[in-house]
Parts: sequence; C-alpha cells; structure tokens
Amino acid sequence: MLGSHEYERRQAALRRLAARSGFEGVVVWSKGGAAQDQYAGVYHLTGFYQHQPFVPDAPGRWRAQGHAAVVLPVDGPALLLTDTGTLQEPAPAIRLRTAPDLVDTLADQIRASLPPGRVGLIGCAAMAAPWWCRLRSVLPGHDLVGADELGWEARRVKSPAELDLLRASGALGARAMTAARDSAAPGATEAEVAAAAIAEIVRASGVYYGMGISSGARSHTYAASGPAPYRGDVRLSEGDLLRIDLYGSLHGYLFDLARTWVVGGEPTTEQRRLLDAVRDSVMAGIELLRPGRRVSEVARRCQEVFERSSFAAHHGLPASEMGGTWGHGLGLSFEPPLLAEDGANAGDTIEAGMCLALERRVAIPSEGGATYEDDVIVTPSGPEVITGD
Amino acid sequence: MLGSHEYERRQAALRRLAARSGFEGVVVWSKGGAAQDQYAGVYHLTGFYQHQPFVPDAPGRWRAQGHAAVVLPVDGPALLLTDTGTLQEPAPAIRLRTAPDLVDTLADQIRASLPPGRVGLIGCAAMAAPWWCRLRSVLPGHDLVGADELGWEARRVKSPAELDLLRASGALGARAMTAARDSAAPGATEAEVAAAAIAEIVRASGVYYGMGISSGARSHTYAASGPAPYRGDVRLSEGDLLRIDLYGSLHGYLFDLARTWVVGGEPTTEQRRLLDAVRDSVMAGIELLRPGRRVSEVARRCQEVFERSSFAAHHGLPASEMGGTWGHGLGLSFEPPLLAEDGANAGDTIEAGMCLALERRVAIPSEGGATYEDDVIVTPSGPEVITGD
Repeated sequence: MLGSHEYERRQAALRRLAARSGFEGVVVWSKGGAAQDQYAGVYHLTGFYQHQPFVPDAPGRWRAQGHAAVVLPVDGPALLLTDTGTLQEPAPAIRLRTAPDLVDTLADQIRASLPPGRVGLIGCAAMAAPWWCRLRSVLPGHDLVGADELGWEARRVKSPAELDLLRASGALGARAMTAARDSAAPGATEAEVAAAAIAEIVRASGVYYGMGISSGARSHTYAASGPAPYRGDVRLSEGDLLRIDLYGSLHGYLFDLARTWVVGGEPTTEQRRLLDAVRDSVMAGIELLRPGRRVSEVARRCQEVFERSSFAAHHGLPASEMGGTWGHGLGLSFEPPLLAEDGANAGDTIEAGMCLALERRVAIPSEGGATYEDDVIVTPSGPEVITGD
Repeated sequence: MLGSHEYERRQAALRRLAARSGFEGVVVWSKGGAAQDQYAGVYHLTGFYQHQPFVPDAPGRWRAQGHAAVVLPVDGPALLLTDTGTLQEPAPAIRLRTAPDLVDTLADQIRASLPPGRVGLIGCAAMAAPWWCRLRSVLPGHDLVGADELGWEARRVKSPAELDLLRASGALGARAMTAARDSAAPGATEAEVAAAAIAEIVRASGVYYGMGISSGARSHTYAASGPAPYRGDVRLSEGDLLRIDLYGSLHGYLFDLARTWVVGGEPTTEQRRLLDAVRDSVMAGIELLRPGRRVSEVARRCQEVFERSSFAAHHGLPASEMGGTWGHGLGLSFEPPLLAEDGANAGDTIEAGMCLALERRVAIPSEGGATYEDDVIVTPSGPEVITGD
C-alpha cells in the first residue's frame, strides 16, 4: 500500500524506542482473519454476546473490554460476568454481574465460588497473555489449566434446536453465494460482488465474518493483500475464474462455503479439470458422513478421489494448503474434529448431530486456483448438505 | 434466542465434563465486539495482513492460524513470520518466513536473532495465554515483557501518508452513514439500514468491523442481543430515534463515527434536548483539539458543555457509559490517548498529526438514547473533522 521507505522508517523508529527501553528487540504479534470473535463458549452456555468493541486496557476504568466470562462451579450456581452491562436487552437468563475490571472481578469470583483446586479455562485463544498471568498471580490457591477440549466436547454433537439454527444459517450462506454469482457479470469489480453477498447476509440479520475472494490472474491467491479481501480496482472479465470462500453466522451459528466458477461463460478444459477436482473430492467425502464412519476414512476417500482426478493426472498433486485436512467441525466457531487421515481426530467416529464443513483449496500460480466447500449435518440416515445451491 | 432449558442442559453437561476432569469448576471466557482483529502492529511495520481465519490449534499441523509476527532486533534485520504463505500477493517488502507452527518458529527466531536479555512483546491482546506460556517456557534465557506502550508510542503521531489514508477512511465512513440515513424510511428494518451502510463500505474496498444500532423503544440500548447488532424484525416508525455507531476501515485505517436522528420527521422537544446534548458537548471538545492543549482540558470542556445542556437541566447527569472518557486515539486500531479528565493520559499534550475520535453516548431507559461521534485530525492550525456530513 505505502512505499517501502515508510515501513523502513517505522521499523527504525520502533528500534529506537525498544533500545531506549532496554530491550534486545521486540516481537510484534498480530491477528487477522476478520471477525473471529470467539464468542462461542459464553454464548453457548448463556445466549449472551458482548457488543462492546475491544479497547486497550485503561487501569482504573476498564480491562478486557469486549469480553465476557462464565464461572461454572461443578456444584453450584453459574454466574455471568461482563464488562459493560447497559448495552443490551433482554438480559440473559443467568445471574449477571457487571464490572469494568473483568479480570480482577473474575479472580474475586473464582475465590468466592470455587474451593482451592484445579480450574479449567475454556476460551484460551481469547484470553490475552497479560490477563492470564494476572489471574495466576492473584489466585495462588487455584491451579488454572487450559481446558478448551471440554468446551469442544460439550458442543460437538448439536441439539435439535441447534441443528435447525445451522440449517437456517447454511441456507443464508447459500443465498449470499447466489447473490454473489448474480452480481458477477463481466465488468463488475470483486468489491461489488462481495457487497452483494454481504448485503444479502445483513438484510437477513446474519453477520458477515470474512471471505477469501480472487479472480483471473490472481485466482491462485486466497484474498487481496491488506485488510480488505476484495479489490475495488479489479474488474471481472469473461472467462475469468472467480473463487469465493465465504463465512459468517446467523444467530451466532456459522456458515462456511466456497464456490469457484467461470465469469460469463463455460470453463475451458483446463478450468474444468480444476473445478471438477475440488468439487468431486469434497462430494465423495460428504457421501461418507454417516454415523459410525471414522474421520480418517472420510479424509482418505477425499484424497483418493482427488488423486484419481484428471487434474492430478495432468498436474500432479499440489501441496495441501490446509496441513492435510479436508475440513472441520462447525457450530458457534470453527472447531474439532479436523478431518484428516492422521493426527488427533483421525480415529474419531462420525455421529448423528454433528455438523461438518468439507473443503478443498487448490492453487497453482500458472494455472489459477479453486475452492469448493459445503456444510453438512450428519443425520441418522446420512449426510444432509445445508449449503446446497 | 433459545429457551432457558437449552442453556441449563448445556451448563449441566459441561459441569459433568468438568467434574470428570477433576476440576472444581470451569471459567468460560469469550470475546465479542466484532472484527477487532488486532492486525495493527504487524501491518504498521510491514503492510502485511493475514487473511487465514483463526482455527484452533492442531498439534503437528498448525498453531496460531490467522496470526503473524515480526521479530525486530534493536540492531539487525527484521523478519516477518506467518503461518500461511500461499495466500496473498504481492509479497510484503520484508524478509518473510512461513511456518505452520508459528509459536515454536517464533521461539527459534528469537533465539537465533536476539541475544539473551529483555524482549518486548507488542500485541499482547492477540497473544493467547497458552502460546505466551509456551514461549516463556522454551526461552529461559530471554525475559519476555509486555510492551504494547511502545507500539502505541510508535503509532501516536501519524505520517503525512497515514493522515491521507485516515481522511479517505473518514470520508468513506461518512458516506456509509449517509447511505444508512437515506435508507432509513419508515417501514425499513434496522437490518436493511445496516445493509445499506455496509454495502457502501464494501463497494469502496473498505471493511465493515461492527456497529451499535438501536431504535424507538430500544434506543437506550447499544445493539441487539446476539452476534448481529441489527434486527431484521424491528421496523422503523416515523418519530423513532435511530442511533448508529459505525466502525470499519479503509486500507486498514479506522473510521468510527456515530449519529442519532429522528426517522421521517423532526425531533420533539425532549428528543432535541438529547440530540443537542451529545452533539454540542462533542463539538465543544473538537474545537480544543489544537497542538499544545492537554487531554484533560479537552475532556473537561466536553463535560462542562454537557453539564450546562438543557438535557442535563431536565434529567440530571447520567452515568458515563465509557468510564468517564470522551474518546480515544484512532489509527490502525482504537488506541491511546484516552480522552479523560484524569487517568494515564490526562496530562498528554495534543500534537499535530494525531487522529482522535470524540464521542458521547447517553442512554435512559425511559427516554431513549443517543450517540454522537466524529473523527478529527489535529493539524498545526487546529481540528480537521474527517467524518463530517
């Protein structure tokens, strides 16, 4: 975006500040990926979501703005803590305490409601390092332990009410993808296509989280550089590959689907090979999403079909962009199981009531790229695709 | 959203899982606030943003997906580390290393490029607790210290190039608010109004981060319950207060503005008092955003004008919803200084090249609520409002 001199000046200025502070150097750590708010744990237990955006700590005014916590004793009443109490109604159906200093208030509450011993923390990725250190230092009698696995286990098999919410969310995602397709005429910009999809989501009270979008000569990339994934200066031409991976939520439950197509026309033979390979391999895996199957079987079937594709015969097997996984669980977040032939979830059994996103991305700089992804509910009688066209 | 029985079942199920793991209880920690990705530190230094959305740790495949890190020695070349290297082009103008396990690779790089001693960490709020603990345990010779203040100091006064980007972003925010206003006819839903604003942002290659929106009998709240701030089932009526606080970015630089108005007509006397109080107090503070003024002076002036308002004469002084602050710095994130009469930044001097968001929220359940907010660049000759109508 800016010239490299600007970045060099910034790096030099920060070096001086670091040296003045007696540091050997600094590590600058950042998070992208759009709207991954990590509200799942508290929202799942209480239906409460905190809309206050994050603002840095201001000692004496607030700490951890934008966060919420539930303290759930093994034997005792649950309590919801939040940093801003005046922002929403109706109030959630759980005991609620508001406190600007959420971290110290949480420590007080742990001391008051849990005897000394082990305490599991669910939601570690939303707990900033300084707050974790603070909690541990003021709670010497409690052994605070990361326990995200418990949260995932509690959310792995969805209730009938949740499955209905996921169906509605998947249908909205599919409608948004259709709106993108309808707007993607030659001459439209990537940003206009993105706007059509996002407006469809918002009008239905859904929330847009993020997308990968690329086209034409850049279709081998996932998204544009910079915080906007779409470009307003890239116009679609007839024959371009257009590749969209779209995710968001309705009532907090995620949809996550991807499609790739050719703008204004039919695919060439080369394009057809690419599109068929990603779609057919995902579809083959979906067919195996039945109670009693193993995660490793599903991933193996996807891989076999991909390896037998005309694309693979002509181009070989490109490296997986997803560490060898073919998808993931889906609910109030992206979650386990990861669908891979090996690793932690390989031996997991597929169960009725699970919701899974199956996907494949392929990108070759000289040829272009494609993604295909669908969300699937596992029913007692087999797979139910909830993001179908 | 769901019945309270559903939440009680979930809480009971998690209690059982916690007891089985030998915990006294669990703490469930979550983050809301929409799209606060905290990309500022790395993007400021390198122009790089990571589009891969967050996915939970999968040992052996990836850790910290969606994150990026810069290692900047006080005396030596900088290095950018990221977990997915195939997603974007052009590549950033800095040495780049991709590694699925970002946390352990970062530890290796710190060992290789920084002598034993103090190392500052900028971006603590995006660094999850388990990764921080891991880094500290594998780097016994390095003293890792939270150092967000250095990052804020380095970004406090903007360069001319950044000020131009902030002007473009502020203008886009203003256009989006106009689009919201144009769509807010009686009969429209809150969600339709939100969609109009968001589509305007996206078509221009901006990114929508979040909003507070409420209307009519709910205008004293900040946003709807649940992850969507807008409601598709609330239709505007003539005479309703409509209150919108909208934030997002263009090229990564934030806009953050708020307006409140009466749908399809003129305010009543009561509504006028409320609208004037929030607007006039903010405007009075903006007039003082000049080089050499103190932060405390600005906040004091806002407060004085609010206290002298007709609203305050009739209703008294409602508690501040923002811990007594009247605004904050604005750039690649919400950042210091906090504009308050007391506290850490009260004695800070306003300088040319700063960008500040001034705001006031008022909410009284019986009367309704209103917010007013503008973004302002401090020039050598005084305030330049960049989100003006």
